Amino acid sequence: MALQVSSHFDSGNIVVIDASDPAAIQLEIPFDAGGEHRQWFHFRVSGSGPRTLRIRNAGQCSYPKGWEGYRACRSTDRETWVRVPTTYADGVLSIHDDPDADVAWYAYFAPYSQERHQDLLARCQASALARVERLGATVDGRDLDRVVVGTPGERVFWVIARQHPGESMAEWWMEGFLGRLLDPACALARRLRERVVFHVVPNMNPDGSARGHLRCNAVGANLNREWHAPTMARSPEVKLVRDAMDATGVKLCLDVHGDEALPYNFISGAEGISGWTPRLAELDAAFRLAYERATPDFQRVHGYPLDQPGQGNLTMCTNAIAERFACLAMTLEMPFKDNADLPDPTFGWSPARCQALGAAVLHPMAAVLDRLR
Amino acid sequence: MALQVSSHFDSGNIVVIDASDPAAIQLEIPFDAGGEHRQWFHFRVSGSGPRTLRIRNAGQCSYPKGWEGYRACRSTDRETWVRVPTTYADGVLSIHDDPDADVAWYAYFAPYSQERHQDLLARCQASALARVERLGATVDGRDLDRVVVGTPGERVFWVIARQHPGESMAEWWMEGFLGRLLDPACALARRLRERVVFHVVPNMNPDGSARGHLRCNAVGANLNREWHAPTMARSPEVKLVRDAMDATGVKLCLDVHGDEALPYNFISGAEGISGWTPRLAELDAAFRLAYERATPDFQRVHGYPLDQPGQGNLTMCTNAIAERFACLAMTLEMPFKDNADLPDPTFGWSPARCQALGAAVLHPMAAVLDRLR
Amino acid sequence: MALQVSSHFDSGNIVVIDASDPAAIQLEIPFDAGGEHRQWFHFRVSGSGPRTLRIRNAGQCSYPKGWEGYRACRSTDRETWVRVPTTYADGVLSIHDDPDADVAWYAYFAPYSQERHQDLLARCQASALARVERLGATVDGRDLDRVVVGTPGERVFWVIARQHPGESMAEWWMEGFLGRLLDPACALARRLRERVVFHVVPNMNPDGSARGHLRCNAVGANLNREWHAPTMARSPEVKLVRDAMDATGVKLCLDVHGDEALPYNFISGAEGISGWTPRLAELDAAFRLAYERATPDFQRVHGYPLDQPGQGNLTMCTNAIAERFACLAMTLEMPFKDNADLPDPTFGWSPARCQALGAAVLHPMAAVLDRLR
Amino acid sequence: MALQVSSHFDSGNIVVIDASDPAAIQLEIPFDAGGEHRQWFHFRVSGSGPRTLRIRNAGQCSYPKGWEGYRACRSTDRETWVRVPTTYADGVLSIHDDPDADVAWYAYFAPYSQERHQDLLARCQASALARVERLGATVDGRDLDRVVVGTPGERVFWVIARQHPGESMAEWWMEGFLGRLLDPACALARRLRERVVFHVVPNMNPDGSARGHLRCNAVGANLNREWHAPTMARSPEVKLVRDAMDATGVKLCLDVHGDEALPYNFISGAEGISGWTPRLAELDAAFRLAYERATPDFQRVHGYPLDQPGQGNLTMCTNAIAERFACLAMTLEMPFKDNADLPDPTFGWSPARCQALGAAVLHPMAAVLDRLR
Repeated sequence: MALQVSSHFDSGNIVVIDASDPAAIQLEIPFDAGGEHRQWFHFRVSGSGPRTLRIRNAGQCSYPKGWEGYRACRSTDRETWVRVPTTYADGVLSIHDDPDADVAWYAYFAPYSQERHQDLLARCQASALARVERLGATVDGRDLDRVVVGTPGERVFWVIARQHPGESMAEWWMEGFLGRLLDPACALARRLRERVVFHVVPNMNPDGSARGHLRCNAVGANLNREWHAPTMARSPEVKLVRDAMDATGVKLCLDVHGDEALPYNFISGAEGISGWTPRLAELDAAFRLAYERATPDFQRVHGYPLDQPGQGNLTMCTNAIAERFACLAMTLEMPFKDNADLPDPTFGWSPARCQALGAAVLHPMAAVLDRLR
Repeated sequence: MALQVSSHFDSGNIVVIDASDPAAIQLEIPFDAGGEHRQWFHFRVSGSGPRTLRIRNAGQCSYPKGWEGYRACRSTDRETWVRVPTTYADGVLSIHDDPDADVAWYAYFAPYSQERHQDLLARCQASALARVERLGATVDGRDLDRVVVGTPGERVFWVIARQHPGESMAEWWMEGFLGRLLDPACALARRLRERVVFHVVPNMNPDGSARGHLRCNAVGANLNREWHAPTMARSPEVKLVRDAMDATGVKLCLDVHGDEALPYNFISGAEGISGWTPRLAELDAAFRLAYERATPDFQRVHGYPLDQPGQGNLTMCTNAIAERFACLAMTLEMPFKDNADLPDPTFGWSPARCQALGAAVLHPMAAVLDRLR
Repeated sequence: MALQVSSHFDSGNIVVIDASDPAAIQLEIPFDAGGEHRQWFHFRVSGSGPRTLRIRNAGQCSYPKGWEGYRACRSTDRETWVRVPTTYADGVLSIHDDPDADVAWYAYFAPYSQERHQDLLARCQASALARVERLGATVDGRDLDRVVVGTPGERVFWVIARQHPGESMAEWWMEGFLGRLLDPACALARRLRERVVFHVVPNMNPDGSARGHLRCNAVGANLNREWHAPTMARSPEVKLVRDAMDATGVKLCLDVHGDEALPYNFISGAEGISGWTPRLAELDAAFRLAYERATPDFQRVHGYPLDQPGQGNLTMCTNAIAERFACLAMTLEMPFKDNADLPDPTFGWSPARCQALGAAVLHPMAAVLDRLR
Repeated sequence: MALQVSSHFDSGNIVVIDASDPAAIQLEIPFDAGGEHRQWFHFRVSGSGPRTLRIRNAGQCSYPKGWEGYRACRSTDRETWVRVPTTYADGVLSIHDDPDADVAWYAYFAPYSQERHQDLLARCQASALARVERLGATVDGRDLDRVVVGTPGERVFWVIARQHPGESMAEWWMEGFLGRLLDPACALARRLRERVVFHVVPNMNPDGSARGHLRCNAVGANLNREWHAPTMARSPEVKLVRDAMDATGVKLCLDVHGDEALPYNFISGAEGISGWTPRLAELDAAFRLAYERATPDFQRVHGYPLDQPGQGNLTMCTNAIAERFACLAMTLEMPFKDNADLPDPTFGWSPARCQALGAAVLHPMAAVLDRLR
């Protein structure tokens, strides 16, 4: 019996070319608005039995290297996402599965819906330790919100996630980070709340998230290429946050992402900015070392090539903010695939591990705290 | 400080005319697709402090009588929805509130999102006692699903809800009904599963639900006026279900709704069809009596005026199905306001009470079972 | 490797004769205080691998017929209790098992601990709808408590459970009963709370429960043979409750038990008292009929032989209270085995089904309510 | 109306001298078996209204300094334990309270029952990452169990708690420690499980725990003064564990306790043993430093006076094990009062904070790991 493929729901993204043969269901990933990027997929398959799902334009997606060694995520209970056998050859990604259920959901990574996002805000505001503040509207008119935690007047940390909406791991990370930061029984969180005021944007790109984009907002802007000159027309999400940063100042900025290709958790720094100093280098190194000590899921061996001095791309958040505020700014990358140092055959890199990594970030924050006055 | 009103999320529906004065925020409810119906509202207010939210076109909505004695629903945790002071005068509905939170959500009734709908399906299919089957696609391309429970070959019951998407109470009712029907420890459910095959459509109108409509689907069709001649172009949701009913036959059909005006739970029958018989009258009466005995939240005193013999509107599900299958068909109505017999000053008619009423329906089903062969 | 058997914990009860051979572990059930009754067992087996547990004095226990067709309960997570293969021959009960765990607990029926009992009280008092009142002390000095629910001045219902402590199903039933009675969203519960004042004793025999007795209290009194003349020395549990009943009056009394032999849920009445009247007979019949209609787990076919007129044993609660207050009094019996009408091969009669039966009792209570003024 | 005080339940401990006057209820703390130690109290008060509970022999208890600055713990829901106003003068501890509930429980610290202990074991064995093994029987015949986690053949860590049963914080700590150690998503736990085999005894003294003792087992032995020469007659709990240690060897031993007087979390080491070495000193210092870095609830400023070289008391676990195995052995102390560095006016030192401290111990364990081969 034929299977049906659908994607008209939060962050759904696929085009069905031909679903008549369960052994070779032909799919394509459509472009984000802007027509430049595509790689995120999220769809539902109705009907039981074995199937091979063939994403035939995988090789023309933004990061073809992302498909090498990648396994797709599938859930039947919408809570647990397992990895299923996936092959990549001749530009086609083939997902082979036979779930024990009538309906199955597939995604590039475990999705994080706008409903869950609003629930996260609601949970934060229920704590006496946080308040939620709307910064303004996205292009589509969604709310762009920040969560404020800590002690007014203390040093300012900004933590933002999901500029690239398809990197849903970044918001799972936020759940772990905010959950621990607001835990009344965690002494480390308490110390940080005493000495820092945190401005946290759990989702920088609600439009792209809802629309099922990989990297862009509703008008096709890659937000992490807009920090030099954001505008309310093209990148209000960045403009609103950068203006708020100007109002608060910034001592530390952490921008949370996912990387399609590298199977590791790592940090990328602002070493390429003209204002790079030994002090910043030392802080950056101390942060990474303390993160590595806090959790073996973070490492310092693998990562992006370093920028040459003065060659940093100032359209990106980390460089722009480090330069603008002469502060410690970093990009955290998590894998779509798995952490090759601690591979998990069942789940790969997973929401639960994102949350654990987010909870662990309090350690490196505490480690550099005293040097950030 | 100014408050911000937004509605770009699942089932959000409002137009902001002027939000500059918290003491008189000017709002309007936009039409459903089709330009005929409007009454559902759902929006978020960001910012703290007292506010009066004035829906200034309330008097031009579909059921102005629905505003008399009505109190709006508000949540700050997105789980608990309380009633807040609301007045209706000169065609304007005014909601007066001062929530102890940074962000508050307001709705005509506690919303039931598409994410929660998919979670409900996932929970059903996790039970060995149910399977989920996609019937086809809605106008917008969403999935129209049924849950099948019980013993193949036994008498066929169809239970459908939310033809009118703004009547979200109908899907809360479904949670209670399906939850009990699939409870392995409930002996009544077990007996029903042995003797009936249930076809359950928890949401007949996913497009209207996601779009924030009151009564219509994506092309403006009021689905409960389409049962005489549904088409795939205008009302595929009805066409798909009616075709499936033709394939299974129907012994009992229950169509679950909400009523804007009447503060009671009641049933409306098919007494106006030409094929009305003493047997159907007796079954209908027995069902209502047993429902009333099962829960004081159901009653038989208040309800719609009876149709004259032969004057039943055959565009409506209950009449159409009763006529087509010579079977017991009924419409269940729940209040947007409260049950005036058992008023609850804090919650009014609420999700928890919808669930309890849904769980209680197993009793009248069991009461008429043996006469439905 | 040898297994170890232990029972020094709440409601633990076994004597280990010889545990050296896993294929034939020799056990005996010790007497309750008083040396008359024994049948309850509850013990832990440490160590993995197949085992046969032989209760070699099963044939000398209080109800040897209880072992015919019986299967023992076993848990490895202390939440889920499954039935395991059990045979009874030559007076020996043999439990054959090979659990997938290092430690397993075995019991005659799923145990209900004193900690859980106190948690139940705490949960009740957390509701604005109930208060907890200590009636006095047991022989051992434990608290004997009642939960009071409803409207002062209204008709008085007493519901008591676990006079016989080994009949732990009676307190699982109480969880379901109290849980629903205190559910703010249940209209039936609300109606009952308006028209009744409930005095509920979830555990009449805390000493016997903690000690692992089948039927007796700490000094060997079978409480359900003490209602004619309870004393503070021998049966304070009954004395305190009967005195409280004298203070409140009684319109309905339900005493909840388990039966070792009969695989059914049924009610035993007070037809043998000298004060039996047509009115009481009618009420008793109406209650049973309504309970049967409310749940197929209750039935009216199987039960105890009727007492001859005037021959009722007035030492028992139901007869004593019916006579003393000229009221409707009944004993509810649940099986240790299973409900043969709706057998469950995995769980048999289970805590979840006890809870469902307890929740369903609101229906027969409501059915007779108006006739109990 | 008079209040009633009772304590016949798990870890209950009080003697009621006179409860007739709620304004001055006269209580005494009875001795542990052995007649030497007393300080643990745990009792229930039935009845509502203000009360002053006077423990009139507080000044004759084991640690009168423990009462200075101490506030008693009270719960009405048996989950949340708050601190209530408490004064100590003239040898009398007075607890002043007016709970909003019918029944309240009071304790020296939040109790940890034997039922919860067994639930903890059941939860551990449900994990594929742990197994539960019974070491033998206590004096009373209860089970003494260890949880084994990690990789056979790797370095051996022993972690034990609650030699002193009234120090219930030690088992709350164990919940946090074991919970994280068995968390599949925690990379730090995974690394430790790969490189260590953990032998964990969550409760060294089940008899004393159930009996409501402060420091002793069922025959009055203070287990932490028995490690030089434990016997099966007097201290089987120590004998069984020490024999098991002999069988496995020990690289690290952590013994978890509570301290009546000091309002801090700290470690006490084995510096007084004759086999103390620079290597052990370095390891001990590294462990403390890493624990302090992991959580501000641990500190290195306050603690016990150091033992003089060679003067360590070899009857105590830490000294005995450090000497016997030439290994790193430490005693962790938590407060009955609060952590004065991070005081919490509502909860004081609490179960949730114990759990957080237990979870944090993975950091110092990881920090010294490589040096423990």
